[in-house]
Amino acid sequence: MTDKNQPVSGNDLARFSGPNTFMRLPSASDLVGLDVAVLGVPMDIGTSWRSGTRFGPKQIRAESAMIRPYNLATGAAPFDSLQVADIGDLAINTFSLSDSLRIVAESYGTILKHNVVPVAMGGDHSITLPILRAIHARHGPVALVHVDAHADVNDEMFGMRETHGTVFRRAHEEGLINPSKTYQVGLRGTGYAATDFTEAQDWGFQQFPAHELWGRSLAALGAEIRRDIGTEMPVYVTYDIDSLDPAYAPGTGTPEIGGLTTPQALELIRALKGLNIVGCDLVEVSPPYDTSGNTALTGANILYELLCVLPGVAYR
Amino acid sequence: MTDKNQPVSGNDLARFSGPNTFMRLPSASDLVGLDVAVLGVPMDIGTSWRSGTRFGPKQIRAESAMIRPYNLATGAAPFDSLQVADIGDLAINTFSLSDSLRIVAESYGTILKHNVVPVAMGGDHSITLPILRAIHARHGPVALVHVDAHADVNDEMFGMRETHGTVFRRAHEEGLINPSKTYQVGLRGTGYAATDFTEAQDWGFQQFPAHELWGRSLAALGAEIRRDIGTEMPVYVTYDIDSLDPAYAPGTGTPEIGGLTTPQALELIRALKGLNIVGCDLVEVSPPYDTSGNTALTGANILYELLCVLPGVAYR
Amino acid sequence: MTDKNQPVSGNDLARFSGPNTFMRLPSASDLVGLDVAVLGVPMDIGTSWRSGTRFGPKQIRAESAMIRPYNLATGAAPFDSLQVADIGDLAINTFSLSDSLRIVAESYGTILKHNVVPVAMGGDHSITLPILRAIHARHGPVALVHVDAHADVNDEMFGMRETHGTVFRRAHEEGLINPSKTYQVGLRGTGYAATDFTEAQDWGFQQFPAHELWGRSLAALGAEIRRDIGTEMPVYVTYDIDSLDPAYAPGTGTPEIGGLTTPQALELIRALKGLNIVGCDLVEVSPPYDTSGNTALTGANILYELLCVLPGVAYR
Amino acid sequence: MTDKNQPVSGNDLARFSGPNTFMRLPSASDLVGLDVAVLGVPMDIGTSWRSGTRFGPKQIRAESAMIRPYNLATGAAPFDSLQVADIGDLAINTFSLSDSLRIVAESYGTILKHNVVPVAMGGDHSITLPILRAIHARHGPVALVHVDAHADVNDEMFGMRETHGTVFRRAHEEGLINPSKTYQVGLRGTGYAATDFTEAQDWGFQQFPAHELWGRSLAALGAEIRRDIGTEMPVYVTYDIDSLDPAYAPGTGTPEIGGLTTPQALELIRALKGLNIVGCDLVEVSPPYDTSGNTALTGANILYELLCVLPGVAYR
Amino acid sequence: MTDKNQPVSGNDLARFSGPNTFMRLPSASDLVGLDVAVLGVPMDIGTSWRSGTRFGPKQIRAESAMIRPYNLATGAAPFDSLQVADIGDLAINTFSLSDSLRIVAESYGTILKHNVVPVAMGGDHSITLPILRAIHARHGPVALVHVDAHADVNDEMFGMRETHGTVFRRAHEEGLINPSKTYQVGLRGTGYAATDFTEAQDWGFQQFPAHELWGRSLAALGAEIRRDIGTEMPVYVTYDIDSLDPAYAPGTGTPEIGGLTTPQALELIRALKGLNIVGCDLVEVSPPYDTSGNTALTGANILYELLCVLPGVAYR
Amino acid sequence: MTDKNQPVSGNDLARFSGPNTFMRLPSASDLVGLDVAVLGVPMDIGTSWRSGTRFGPKQIRAESAMIRPYNLATGAAPFDSLQVADIGDLAINTFSLSDSLRIVAESYGTILKHNVVPVAMGGDHSITLPILRAIHARHGPVALVHVDAHADVNDEMFGMRETHGTVFRRAHEEGLINPSKTYQVGLRGTGYAATDFTEAQDWGFQQFPAHELWGRSLAALGAEIRRDIGTEMPVYVTYDIDSLDPAYAPGTGTPEIGGLTTPQALELIRALKGLNIVGCDLVEVSPPYDTSGNTALTGANILYELLCVLPGVAYR
Repeated sequence: MTDKNQPVSGNDLARFSGPNTFMRLPSASDLVGLDVAVLGVPMDIGTSWRSGTRFGPKQIRAESAMIRPYNLATGAAPFDSLQVADIGDLAINTFSLSDSLRIVAESYGTILKHNVVPVAMGGDHSITLPILRAIHARHGPVALVHVDAHADVNDEMFGMRETHGTVFRRAHEEGLINPSKTYQVGLRGTGYAATDFTEAQDWGFQQFPAHELWGRSLAALGAEIRRDIGTEMPVYVTYDIDSLDPAYAPGTGTPEIGGLTTPQALELIRALKGLNIVGCDLVEVSPPYDTSGNTALTGANILYELLCVLPGVAYR
Repeated sequence: MTDKNQPVSGNDLARFSGPNTFMRLPSASDLVGLDVAVLGVPMDIGTSWRSGTRFGPKQIRAESAMIRPYNLATGAAPFDSLQVADIGDLAINTFSLSDSLRIVAESYGTILKHNVVPVAMGGDHSITLPILRAIHARHGPVALVHVDAHADVNDEMFGMRETHGTVFRRAHEEGLINPSKTYQVGLRGTGYAATDFTEAQDWGFQQFPAHELWGRSLAALGAEIRRDIGTEMPVYVTYDIDSLDPAYAPGTGTPEIGGLTTPQALELIRALKGLNIVGCDLVEVSPPYDTSGNTALTGANILYELLCVLPGVAYR
Repeated sequence: MTDKNQPVSGNDLARFSGPNTFMRLPSASDLVGLDVAVLGVPMDIGTSWRSGTRFGPKQIRAESAMIRPYNLATGAAPFDSLQVADIGDLAINTFSLSDSLRIVAESYGTILKHNVVPVAMGGDHSITLPILRAIHARHGPVALVHVDAHADVNDEMFGMRETHGTVFRRAHEEGLINPSKTYQVGLRGTGYAATDFTEAQDWGFQQFPAHELWGRSLAALGAEIRRDIGTEMPVYVTYDIDSLDPAYAPGTGTPEIGGLTTPQALELIRALKGLNIVGCDLVEVSPPYDTSGNTALTGANILYELLCVLPGVAYR
Repeated sequence: MTDKNQPVSGNDLARFSGPNTFMRLPSASDLVGLDVAVLGVPMDIGTSWRSGTRFGPKQIRAESAMIRPYNLATGAAPFDSLQVADIGDLAINTFSLSDSLRIVAESYGTILKHNVVPVAMGGDHSITLPILRAIHARHGPVALVHVDAHADVNDEMFGMRETHGTVFRRAHEEGLINPSKTYQVGLRGTGYAATDFTEAQDWGFQQFPAHELWGRSLAALGAEIRRDIGTEMPVYVTYDIDSLDPAYAPGTGTPEIGGLTTPQALELIRALKGLNIVGCDLVEVSPPYDTSGNTALTGANILYELLCVLPGVAYR
Repeated sequence: MTDKNQPVSGNDLARFSGPNTFMRLPSASDLVGLDVAVLGVPMDIGTSWRSGTRFGPKQIRAESAMIRPYNLATGAAPFDSLQVADIGDLAINTFSLSDSLRIVAESYGTILKHNVVPVAMGGDHSITLPILRAIHARHGPVALVHVDAHADVNDEMFGMRETHGTVFRRAHEEGLINPSKTYQVGLRGTGYAATDFTEAQDWGFQQFPAHELWGRSLAALGAEIRRDIGTEMPVYVTYDIDSLDPAYAPGTGTPEIGGLTTPQALELIRALKGLNIVGCDLVEVSPPYDTSGNTALTGANILYELLCVLPGVAYR
Repeated sequence: MTDKNQPVSGNDLARFSGPNTFMRLPSASDLVGLDVAVLGVPMDIGTSWRSGTRFGPKQIRAESAMIRPYNLATGAAPFDSLQVADIGDLAINTFSLSDSLRIVAESYGTILKHNVVPVAMGGDHSITLPILRAIHARHGPVALVHVDAHADVNDEMFGMRETHGTVFRRAHEEGLINPSKTYQVGLRGTGYAATDFTEAQDWGFQQFPAHELWGRSLAALGAEIRRDIGTEMPVYVTYDIDSLDPAYAPGTGTPEIGGLTTPQALELIRALKGLNIVGCDLVEVSPPYDTSGNTALTGANILYELLCVLPGVAYR
């Protein structure tokens, strides 16, 4: 059917064996010819509560061995039409948050020069700011679909302006994102003042708190976002696993109760098909707190579903 | 009220003590006089990803000590009218899948000769094929209610035709089940091609993928299945714990996100009252991945609810 | 904004550090001037299945460090208007259930003399009987909102009349609660006879079994309870974490499948705003079975939400 | 070779299946004809720190399935010459420590009337006081081999005179044991004053603190104890799993670092062969803290080794 | 210093990132030019108690990322002089033990044709029989250093002649090993008769039970073995992680108390330097029971130490 | 006996309750009048493999509730003669390693001005460099007893000169320690070259690799160190929990097999009595990897034993 890279089949090699790449795809060091590059950003020094996300990429890859290439619910067959590879981990500096963020931005600059769609496995959410800087350098301001328990729009934390809680204020200030095309889905929990959320609304961000979504399908919300963005504008999707309720994703650094369900996550992502997605990430899986491995499995599936709605994916 | 076997009461003996039988029922080695035999099939060599289901029966029994005899939601009092015992584990051969399947079929032949309804605690799902063979030998082709994340209709896995992923293709080929009265509920996830599911639809299987059931009560679906089968036809119910979302059942071998909830499981089973159920099983509980014990607890409750809808159960 | 006690801010001291008090509030040994006293009752000798709730208060405090002072969903700012402190643990006698219950009642007598609203972290549910005795001594019979998987209206267990399963029969017999203003929400599971539940209905208790609430918002039920009680009558709220489904709260002593979700828990509590709540508790968090810590986190959040609907809380 | 009860062989039934009795021995409700009765005392309400030992008997039985009948190191074949059965659990009252202790004493009275050697699986250490009372009633004052991190000679705890920390002061006061033939092995840790240990030395107890045993074989100490007691005097052996270092037995309620090793435990027990042991117990295995199951496995093996040095055991 | 394959340095790429190969060595699909091939045999269907070793190779690789190239205790620098690569996993058939063993033998045949020393990560111990068959085909009968809790010389288990408990009887019968140069170190535990061990002694096996080694350095034993074998005879070393005490290696399938320590393991291996080792394996690491990951870490270190004593290793 | 601060007694308040301070000592914000200040440095951003030590102080405090005031092995009664309090955690900046190290140094400067002996609970080992800077500012160059698996004398890691692996090279370069009175005990594992260790020997460091200590009492080594330092020179003791074998301390960030035992740890510390210890720390306890809590318990006991050998401790 195709000469594209394919995941190792579970019928050729038992699922618990083989390379520890995403979905057991081939690994690649050369970006030439790739449509999509899956990569790890193994970091947890930008987090404020439980650490451990430095092992996120390794564990997501391990659990992704369960995923087969064809999406039985949607008919997507991403590996029929796209050349996808796992390009390994970025060589971050685990002793310096600021240096690591610089490395992420530079590495993304290189990746994006090759016209590749980067799909990142975090790592804590602080990685998304340098990613957006590189994305902006390539694509200009992007629409942003941000699924998360937290708005991440603090001005600073402990005097630091670049942490996992300040990403989207910085992105807004630097003009990296189109504020009126920025959607924050799943927000909830506690804060210091109503302005924790409302200030970003004033910038134009559209916020969909979790409590307004409880018990509802997110297919409609996804469709609304898709229509609002349209098919041309470049879009970045950043998915914090803590958008899910801790029942569905216990293994994360800053869990908040009352969150989304995995059916809602799937409904939302599947509705985004047709957008001009130029990159995406899944962050905040923390293996030491993921005793069954199922949070990493969930993260792997979310990444797969994002892969299924990238531009150019074949459906059959 | 009755001289039937009763579970040890939690007021007579603290729940954490007493025999490790299902619900602390009497154990029996003689099948004569039994209406229902609960038994274990401790096996995991038919599974393709995480192992551990060999300890399923032991752990399900341990957690079942919490369950009391009367169903407060439905009024079922199964031990008022049925003679139920735990007959222990089948003596499978842990080094040979094929030999174990042979032993299961033979053991079931013996059980069924005594007019006993067998209720099995797995073990991986490969046990259901020899069970259906024995059921067929006794009852002819049966209707099948199959609740699972996976259709288990592969032709072969690693060249083997009898594994936990090929059960229902074999059952269909061998005429063990009535294909137009076969209901697969909870299917989801990824595969290799649309035919992974649709081929079985062509045989007549009725499939209800999980994503069509999200957020819905399953009472109506259960009622529809009950009407479609009618009260005469013998029915077998096979329940894979991975039909549930990993949030509800983390301790299983091949979890898939986006699954059913336990309320849906209970709605479905309770709606099956009135069917001529001739046997049932609950499979794929894997204790090493069930860190809280709650997956085994869930499996035990599903078995109890199945017991409550067997023919002849008293309600009060 | 206020000179009231405030939780240590996550921007002043990293969340994983600082005092292990509830929400990192100041601890207090003097009750004078307090509006609300948060306290621990570290006990598990009243439980009949899994133990471990003796570590509940310690773990709830640890996880509560994540909670910030302002409720982004409701606008509640409890620390703006109420003086709240963590007054530590009651000095129960871990070798004697009856002596411990006596100590709880006496300690509560002292607390209530200071016109303080006591907010208790259990411990197993047996603590609520002596609490209600002290509450009754101060306030007369109270309305009771009781969220739980179990009705806890047994007459005795192992010949004992005061355990975690007999609380509300004793409370009824002793006239501590107004039976027609007693609401039991989330009941489910198995028992010995229909009268396990219906006898309490005959006393006037209003019962809302979980299976009637599946898939529904509990905002309406909460509003109905609020209207039924009115704004004057003193109300006690007792929250058993096992009212939640084990998917949401695995770390508890007597889990029952088919329970409530955390969104339902939040909907119910938020609807109680306006009631004259004179005390509340959250019981049955068992840390040894809470491998991710998220059950304690959920317990901490439920306590915070209860704090947000106490009389006199400021909203902004 | 024998018509005595035998454990189910691992070649007849896979180790992970079969009855959850000690070593998969037959269970018995009738004491007539037994030489040795293995029984559970599932209790944790006498413990002062971590609970969970109520599940000790169940877990020890589960792990004991690994043990085969013949002792390859010593040649003991206990089931060749002794009739051994698992007689289940004592029906303790989980809500009352004092009532439970009364039940233990009464139950032991019945057992001992049948000339059976009782081998108990705890439970916390408080069970040993009523056991010694019953032993004394039958055999008069006994020699005592007490292996433990703690001397358990407090006068009271929280005003209670019968807890897991006061056992051997009570036993001494009541004349249950011969003080000059009482050996406490493995003592260590912290206390309130030197008299915590020395007072018992004044009574005649012989104490062997762990730090004097580090790095030494205990074969010589065992031989010395054996010679000192002689072959006639009735002996009771009480084995607290926390005598072992937490590296060897993490799953216990009050672990103390710097403890014994399992080789030392085996050396000590094996040296006791020839004593007139009239009963023994293994206490304080707490499954919720035994994440690998290996503490229960260790407990099961210690019980097996004790079985191997009972009077009348065949060696081959 | 060398142009040989080197592990990724922890100073170049954070240890928690990079390829999941053994020690982060390059992976290779071509055997040409290799001196040593590290490979996985991910299998658990030959085990009789706890399963899970199918994930052994994956977890050993993950933990091996901690190991640096130079042995600070011995001065070994294996990567200075040997070309080592990770060649991935053998494509075993997870549904058939006999077919898997056939595949192992064939794969080893291919590997050995290239004059490569195979270093295997198990997997359960049943893999060593087909390995020895292939080794014998290449090298003739070998001396065998077998470190294990169990002698693995059963005749059959459940009628099967090739399982993890029959390996060395088969190897002896088939003439694969030189019986008088076969050393079994660490044996212990229980069995069915003294002949369980002594029969193999009659064949010439030299057995060193654990209880004779407690508290002793194994350097002398290792030196004795080395002298006895000499420098010419081809030697195979098979290392069962359960030779270690469960305190040191909890994550294994059939743990036995009273085992070796890791210092003893290191002393033994380091003393083997100078032997003509033609292959080795480390088996029975079971990740689901290895909650801290440290058993896999220990397995990885044992493999590294074996690497350090292979013929031709440079020391500096 | 004394009016000094005392730990809450386990007979006054159940061990699982009360304040989460070290040994349940009083907390203090004022340093005046204190002899010893126990404090937490909750940090993990200086670590290179597993993170999680940020929760070290909280967990060490929790487990320290088991420790009673009197040392039964040595007779030390530290609270008879010293005024000790828990002064809480340093307010480190979790997003910046360099800023955190600056904060540690400044905070220690303040503490040391009050003539208080600081006893720190880490945190990763990077905290010891700023501590030594402050100690040096107060006391001049100190003797150093450094117990650790690693020498921590790298020049840099990822270009950073101040991480958990470079501490003692920096301390040497800056003249903070007396190199000929620097003792590194427990070193082992792998590296890049022999100079990893030998270079520090050239500076004068005395190194005692673990493999030279296996199976030996460390009392003699401790005595030798004590004699070599003498009673006058100020001494700092830094204790890395990974000096212990992972069997004894699984919950740490960079475990190395073949380490020390807890008896050896106690022997070594107890032999240091008489030294002029001016400060000490216990680092690298990582709670997410400490599934039983026993590594934190071990850390707490090591700190207690260090307290027992501080100058001025009463013995009785």
